[in-house]
Amino acid sequence: MTIELLTIGSELLAGRTLNSNALFIGDELSRAGLTLSRQTSIPDQHEIIVATLRECIERADWVIVSGGLGPTNDDVTKNALSHVFERPLIFHPEILEALKARYQKLGRTITPLLDTQALLPNDAEFIPNEYGTAVGIVLTEGRTTVVAVPGVPREMEPMVRDVIIPRIAAQAKTRSQTITWSTVGWPESRLYETLSRVMADNPEVEVAFLPSELGVRLRFTTHGPDAETTLRRFTDAARPLVAESLYAEDDVGLEVVVGRMLQQRGFTIVLAESCTGGLIAKRLTDVPGSSAYVWGGYVTYDNRAKTDMLGVNPELIAKHGAVSEEVVTAMAKGAIARSGADCSIAVTGIAGPDGGTPDKPVGTVWLATAIKGETLTTKRIQLLGDREAIRARAAQAGLNLLRLRLM
Amino acid sequence: MTIELLTIGSELLAGRTLNSNALFIGDELSRAGLTLSRQTSIPDQHEIIVATLRECIERADWVIVSGGLGPTNDDVTKNALSHVFERPLIFHPEILEALKARYQKLGRTITPLLDTQALLPNDAEFIPNEYGTAVGIVLTEGRTTVVAVPGVPREMEPMVRDVIIPRIAAQAKTRSQTITWSTVGWPESRLYETLSRVMADNPEVEVAFLPSELGVRLRFTTHGPDAETTLRRFTDAARPLVAESLYAEDDVGLEVVVGRMLQQRGFTIVLAESCTGGLIAKRLTDVPGSSAYVWGGYVTYDNRAKTDMLGVNPELIAKHGAVSEEVVTAMAKGAIARSGADCSIAVTGIAGPDGGTPDKPVGTVWLATAIKGETLTTKRIQLLGDREAIRARAAQAGLNLLRLRLM
Repeated sequence: MTIELLTIGSELLAGRTLNSNALFIGDELSRAGLTLSRQTSIPDQHEIIVATLRECIERADWVIVSGGLGPTNDDVTKNALSHVFERPLIFHPEILEALKARYQKLGRTITPLLDTQALLPNDAEFIPNEYGTAVGIVLTEGRTTVVAVPGVPREMEPMVRDVIIPRIAAQAKTRSQTITWSTVGWPESRLYETLSRVMADNPEVEVAFLPSELGVRLRFTTHGPDAETTLRRFTDAARPLVAESLYAEDDVGLEVVVGRMLQQRGFTIVLAESCTGGLIAKRLTDVPGSSAYVWGGYVTYDNRAKTDMLGVNPELIAKHGAVSEEVVTAMAKGAIARSGADCSIAVTGIAGPDGGTPDKPVGTVWLATAIKGETLTTKRIQLLGDREAIRARAAQAGLNLLRLRLM
Repeated sequence: MTIELLTIGSELLAGRTLNSNALFIGDELSRAGLTLSRQTSIPDQHEIIVATLRECIERADWVIVSGGLGPTNDDVTKNALSHVFERPLIFHPEILEALKARYQKLGRTITPLLDTQALLPNDAEFIPNEYGTAVGIVLTEGRTTVVAVPGVPREMEPMVRDVIIPRIAAQAKTRSQTITWSTVGWPESRLYETLSRVMADNPEVEVAFLPSELGVRLRFTTHGPDAETTLRRFTDAARPLVAESLYAEDDVGLEVVVGRMLQQRGFTIVLAESCTGGLIAKRLTDVPGSSAYVWGGYVTYDNRAKTDMLGVNPELIAKHGAVSEEVVTAMAKGAIARSGADCSIAVTGIAGPDGGTPDKPVGTVWLATAIKGETLTTKRIQLLGDREAIRARAAQAGLNLLRLRLM
């Protein structure tokens, strides 16, 4: 089963737009146990699309084409498909009526441009578009099926996930099951070693380690009629081994999981951030509904801010330095004392590029978490990478310290 | 001049990695007045690389290949190049010696794996790699030049920007000049209308409008022997027309420009953030050296936090609501009064998805900026988009309010 992706759009070649559609489609195929063979980006020009489509059809069983639909870019993809498949464009009144009805409901102006959206190559099947005007198009000839979807992610994603991939998977006869786990705090090598025995015992489970700055996602895939049972046996054996690092049996951010834990316990949180400069507060409040548990945060970037905002004794800073267990402890306690919140995360460190010393090189970070009326947890970590990576990792480690404390 | 990009790596097809190299290379070529004709991603398998390389060489004058160099992925690209160009791999002792010297200096262990990094196809030119072990490779045959660079962005970027693109540009005989301007606060349509006369007067200047969530970048390109003079005439005419919105004659973040303005005036800043949840503080402290002017920030997410941390009178909140001119004014003043900072930005708004009312729908944001001992500026804006977009735009608008105040 050969699957190719053709992404159409001059903006992809001119360095204006990241090809996030390729990421989404590749990821969704992987989850279904399928693999993309090739991805090609070309400009939205008729001759080039026609020639490249022919090459793709020559090689592949499935060709997913994204972009170049819609009236503002002259429907280049539709015209190219009509040309390659030698099928004239036919007007579909039912598509236009449905579009007009939706426009009326939204109170939008109906323009003659909409008419072209109801033209489809003869004998094409169409996939409705809930979020835009361009329907998806499915064309089959010989062994190859070509599917054209809009380039706008919100319009493309449901078509690919809900319609196209199930159909490819059915044809591929892959009865596959995939689960993604999210872990934090353990390097890839430790996860690999820890799981090596379970992996050897279950060779029919494909395991992918997907590391990022924030942790490692684990993806387990099984095929065949027993896919589900096999996967359950595997995850049951793996779960206790990686329990400390596994924060979700799902692909989700740590800020979401920590938010849920806070909400379950009825806790509110306050942040005391130095080197992360507000990043932990920003991530926790990225989550809709976080006002239920985020009380607020102190960004104490200047040492005087640590004293004024959190009551950190300036003598502590003078004696131990701003990046020290003593100061991070005072920050975590001060944030609770000065706010109405139930728990806190405090971070102070050297994000670089300057400010490192032999004792405390760039990447040295002290973390603390405090819960009202209970003992406090502190931790020193040494992080690698540039300023951005150190800040991202420090924020993640701070969230993880609280997660482990609340577990 | 046909230029193709071949990105090698199974991770690009499996939805694990965004193809940021394609963005960087496309952007750098655009800046030099050049255009990428096609970009292809393929897995790191010998036969596929060989076949695809041949197709690219057939079509293009320049083929940039990224990825598949380096000992951990079996040097697939180097072997494929050797095969396609029918040139055996030759050992270059001078490359190995340079590598070993660098490893010794960094105190790293020298492994036999390094040896393969000194193998190059016969008659290849190499580009040194300051940040890694795999050198870049340049091979020419007939009209086509193939350049192979590492897939790691930090190693690839200087090779492409400093060595490869100048060489392509020289061969293309494009004496082109490009300037990028960064603007904020004006929609693309307003910029377009404002500049339409200057654009009509100077048809030889190509103008691209590059909108993002944070503003619109303008890219001006000219070609020919008078490129520089033409471009200067154009920018001199355009500058006064867009002065309010133009924050840098360069491609740079607003947090960098605001940071420079603060530093020039000897001002420190404090943030008072509600709906942006720390995002402005995070952005300002993204900049190395920002400790010189960032005093700190208050993330007052809960209404009690607005009162406890910033002294906002709870009666104001009860009477006017947390998203009001009265409350944002009290936040901006309170942040200055309670801190040692010289100026402040305050933001309160409804980021959604819930919490909107007919009077104050989702996207309603109040901004304020205060300078110690001087008057205060407030502004109400109505933003579109989802929660993430509203927060990003609110943070940008807050930074812009201060920029306009300091101008």
